[in-house]
Amino acid sequence: MLRTHTCGELRESNCNEQVTLCGWVQRSRDKGGLMWTDLRDRYGITQLSFEEGSTPAEVLETARKLGREFVVKATGTVVERYSKNDNIPTGGIEIKVESLEILNGSKVPPFIIEDDTDGGEELRMKYRYLDLRRNEVRSKLQLRSKLAMAVRNYLAEQDFIEVETPVLIKSTPEGARDFVVPSRMNQGEFYALPQSPQTFKQLLMVSGFDRYFQIVKCFRDEDLRADRQPEFTQIDCEMSFVNQEDILNTFEGMTRHMFSAVRGVELGDFPHMTYADAMRKYGNDKPDIRFGMEFVELNELAQNKGFSIFDQAELVVGICAEGCAEYTRKQLDALTDFVKRPQIGAKGLVYVKCNADGTFKSSVDKFYSEEDLKAWADKAGAKAGDLILVLSGTANETRKQMSELRLHMGKELGLRDKNTFQPLWVIDFPLLEWDEETERFHAMHHPFTSPKAEDMALLDTDPGKVRANAYDLVINGVEIGGGSIRIHDRATQQLMFKHLGFTEEEAKAQFGFLMDAFEYGAPPHGGIAFGFDRLCAMFGGSDSIRDYIAFPKNTSGRDVMIDSPSTIDEAQLKELGINLR
Amino acid sequence: MLRTHTCGELRESNCNEQVTLCGWVQRSRDKGGLMWTDLRDRYGITQLSFEEGSTPAEVLETARKLGREFVVKATGTVVERYSKNDNIPTGGIEIKVESLEILNGSKVPPFIIEDDTDGGEELRMKYRYLDLRRNEVRSKLQLRSKLAMAVRNYLAEQDFIEVETPVLIKSTPEGARDFVVPSRMNQGEFYALPQSPQTFKQLLMVSGFDRYFQIVKCFRDEDLRADRQPEFTQIDCEMSFVNQEDILNTFEGMTRHMFSAVRGVELGDFPHMTYADAMRKYGNDKPDIRFGMEFVELNELAQNKGFSIFDQAELVVGICAEGCAEYTRKQLDALTDFVKRPQIGAKGLVYVKCNADGTFKSSVDKFYSEEDLKAWADKAGAKAGDLILVLSGTANETRKQMSELRLHMGKELGLRDKNTFQPLWVIDFPLLEWDEETERFHAMHHPFTSPKAEDMALLDTDPGKVRANAYDLVINGVEIGGGSIRIHDRATQQLMFKHLGFTEEEAKAQFGFLMDAFEYGAPPHGGIAFGFDRLCAMFGGSDSIRDYIAFPKNTSGRDVMIDSPSTIDEAQLKELGINLR
Repeated sequence: MLRTHTCGELRESNCNEQVTLCGWVQRSRDKGGLMWTDLRDRYGITQLSFEEGSTPAEVLETARKLGREFVVKATGTVVERYSKNDNIPTGGIEIKVESLEILNGSKVPPFIIEDDTDGGEELRMKYRYLDLRRNEVRSKLQLRSKLAMAVRNYLAEQDFIEVETPVLIKSTPEGARDFVVPSRMNQGEFYALPQSPQTFKQLLMVSGFDRYFQIVKCFRDEDLRADRQPEFTQIDCEMSFVNQEDILNTFEGMTRHMFSAVRGVELGDFPHMTYADAMRKYGNDKPDIRFGMEFVELNELAQNKGFSIFDQAELVVGICAEGCAEYTRKQLDALTDFVKRPQIGAKGLVYVKCNADGTFKSSVDKFYSEEDLKAWADKAGAKAGDLILVLSGTANETRKQMSELRLHMGKELGLRDKNTFQPLWVIDFPLLEWDEETERFHAMHHPFTSPKAEDMALLDTDPGKVRANAYDLVINGVEIGGGSIRIHDRATQQLMFKHLGFTEEEAKAQFGFLMDAFEYGAPPHGGIAFGFDRLCAMFGGSDSIRDYIAFPKNTSGRDVMIDSPSTIDEAQLKELGINLR
Repeated sequence: MLRTHTCGELRESNCNEQVTLCGWVQRSRDKGGLMWTDLRDRYGITQLSFEEGSTPAEVLETARKLGREFVVKATGTVVERYSKNDNIPTGGIEIKVESLEILNGSKVPPFIIEDDTDGGEELRMKYRYLDLRRNEVRSKLQLRSKLAMAVRNYLAEQDFIEVETPVLIKSTPEGARDFVVPSRMNQGEFYALPQSPQTFKQLLMVSGFDRYFQIVKCFRDEDLRADRQPEFTQIDCEMSFVNQEDILNTFEGMTRHMFSAVRGVELGDFPHMTYADAMRKYGNDKPDIRFGMEFVELNELAQNKGFSIFDQAELVVGICAEGCAEYTRKQLDALTDFVKRPQIGAKGLVYVKCNADGTFKSSVDKFYSEEDLKAWADKAGAKAGDLILVLSGTANETRKQMSELRLHMGKELGLRDKNTFQPLWVIDFPLLEWDEETERFHAMHHPFTSPKAEDMALLDTDPGKVRANAYDLVINGVEIGGGSIRIHDRATQQLMFKHLGFTEEEAKAQFGFLMDAFEYGAPPHGGIAFGFDRLCAMFGGSDSIRDYIAFPKNTSGRDVMIDSPSTIDEAQLKELGINLR
């Protein structure tokens, strides 16, 4: 190596050693006869020192030419520092430089390369290679690398085989939109990029691989939001001869290992909650259960007392905010404004203050007596000093609105600590969901998910009621992974496609190979996939998955650094047998 | 799990235990009152036993329905076997079955699922999920998984960070043909799939990542041969602040670790050989040095003796085949036929037998005296009993032909043992190679490879002579990996593009981001990429990379199992802004 040590490794015990370091100039201070330069690499920062008189003149001259982000190679002797810096591990020493070589210069960077940068999002993305030079960003990608290693080692230990499935596959109409790749050798035909390796991993189970995993890129040509990327990474897993409980246990184990190995956190229980309960108690299929504030249904107590808004509502539901009875008018108005925001869409908010003296004060005192309100408080488990917040309307909408309010209150009250991790398995998802737009049922998870045996009879009579052997792993209100026990026989799979509106021909053309495979001894199997980008973000305590992707695309699907996508020339189009419209 | 044990784990020490196994019916033998079924899973085979009288009648009835590849769940007691099978680890026991459930039936498979199958290539590819059920095929993919783990653990240990680079990138005209992906959000523009993450890994070096690796899918839209796939996998690595020697040492270490950890083989020396020497001594830039048989140039000795074919040749070159003086007419004719095959293309073959009695017998006795032939033998180091084989013609062609003959002889003489592994670094590759078709220089490695400093002056005067800081790792005559020390300054990179025939505008449009990056403190860096599919094949002692890919494509780029590529509908084309021609 051009260096003998990294910029993060020298200590007082190395004093008097002759060393060579390579790195980037973080900053220099020139105090007349004395000059210091902080040299940075991935491993740390080490101070170089130069002194008029003792440093060779040509070295000092070179040192004075150094600008920010110059790359240098410095050789010298490790000496104890006069004024030590206890904030960094190398702060006890400096290098008395004896020779200095500029390996490469640098223009002035377009933004400051420090944790606290002055660069805006767009500029940082255009110069992503400089953004990645910041400790904060690089350390996020190091976390990602560590996490992937921890996952792989755990799964290999558990006899999982990593198998690479193809990237150039077949377009299917189900699910999100595919990216497609025109075939030159088969003109007029297209490959598709996989939205997931779902069918391949199921085929590997048919092949007897028993336990499969892969950390794999997947692709969806969807309109993008802040937390969506056209290409994303999954931890994709599948097991044979298992029931749901086996999968939950295995991946509880994997999740515990990740937290323990990478964050040093020992997770507590992984409770199970049905989808129906999650919706009823939290209005959300991925509830954040770091805090309580469960929904309390008040229809019985609140209706038929003359308050027409509640009387006409399908659902009247409240939550109890502990210790918030002292909220001011202004604070309460802010909450009302919050729930009335268009993206939440409530019409108004009713509150009940449980005063310290045992009395009640509500925004609907006109309609309800102290006794009425006491009954609400009892039902909500509210004590003196608490605040009850109530919403009403159609059941589904009101639950969604209340979920937002609950999360908001949880945040306001500091109940959503980023360093507390609370996992939860949500189970018993519906098999199908009605799509108003296309007026047909869609698979809630995907068409390969098995219905619960005891609900099979409902498929013909009340398909929306059929529960699936499907589950999600939720941590802190973020869906981290999801999966299901799969269908493994042709007849059930065909029935499923029928219910999803496929003709027999369509089903055969798209998934004939899978249904064929089911006829040659397909074992019972199931699996799960984790969104790796989101998992990394959650691990790092961030909301933005983009921070955890080395070269992300913007919300128009562009990589502004390399300027992609871009046009291709006519000859290439011709070879592919396509024209631009 | 539906099972208590796998089919590979029960031993005599488990006798009398009640167990449940799941697996596939490999075969059944019904001898009247007694019946045995071999149950198979990924882990092994266990014998189930049924006996009229002691086995419950309904279990026996179910057992008699079992066909090949049925999936069953069997519960019973482990008992010692009457006649043991020492060939398998579970051969000492069998399961006296007490209950039996058919989890799934199977149609008769289209080919026999055993190591020695009767299925042809095409049939096995169509039913790849059944082909993968064969031990031989599955174990190849298990080897692949293990090898990837060994690589990752080694590199992580050496402070390499695994970073995922994007799959949707930008099309570039350099190198092989890109697969492209039409962009819906940016109609008329296309992403390209990466042929390698080359520019991204270099940018990561600019970012100070110091040591990067990735096991990553790459794509080339080339016409396919048996050992080429449109998507393939690379172990892609890059390091900063290194010279060539550092890279060779690091990846010698990685290679040693792979062989030691996965095959239990301790590799010997990794000699270095220049490209020029490899071509001169072996006529090949990836020589198999498990055996000698180095080229001996005979121009001086063989020319001007009246044999016009040699006299007119640019090169007369021989090899010495030890102990082959006794070759018969027929054997010699076969060698002549071999070198005259169109894919080799020699016009003829000259031989000299060094007889046991010290005399010589050659196919050109008319032109050469015993003394002449003795001089050849001396130069070739041939002893009594050896055979000298000689080719002549233009230097490049003759070397290629002789290389083929040498490899052929090595194989015939058993000098190319599959269990001997002989690594070799080939170094000092030419920077550029002349392309007759386009009448310009192409980068031999890629345009980011640095020229040797001492050869820089030749760039303008004799570009073909410039050597690059480029190297290949060759094992047993197979190129396993290749890389280079990169250019890390804008001026040299621009010069390189100029020599490759790029206009300034083209260079900027395609690689402006990289050249820009070089102006912000790019460190000296270099790297290497290993062809992972080929590495696996070499590890497994196979020539076919396809065996080591779970779902390969055929030579028309088709996946015959899922029937891909396929047509897409008009609406999708419209959304993408393209038409079929």
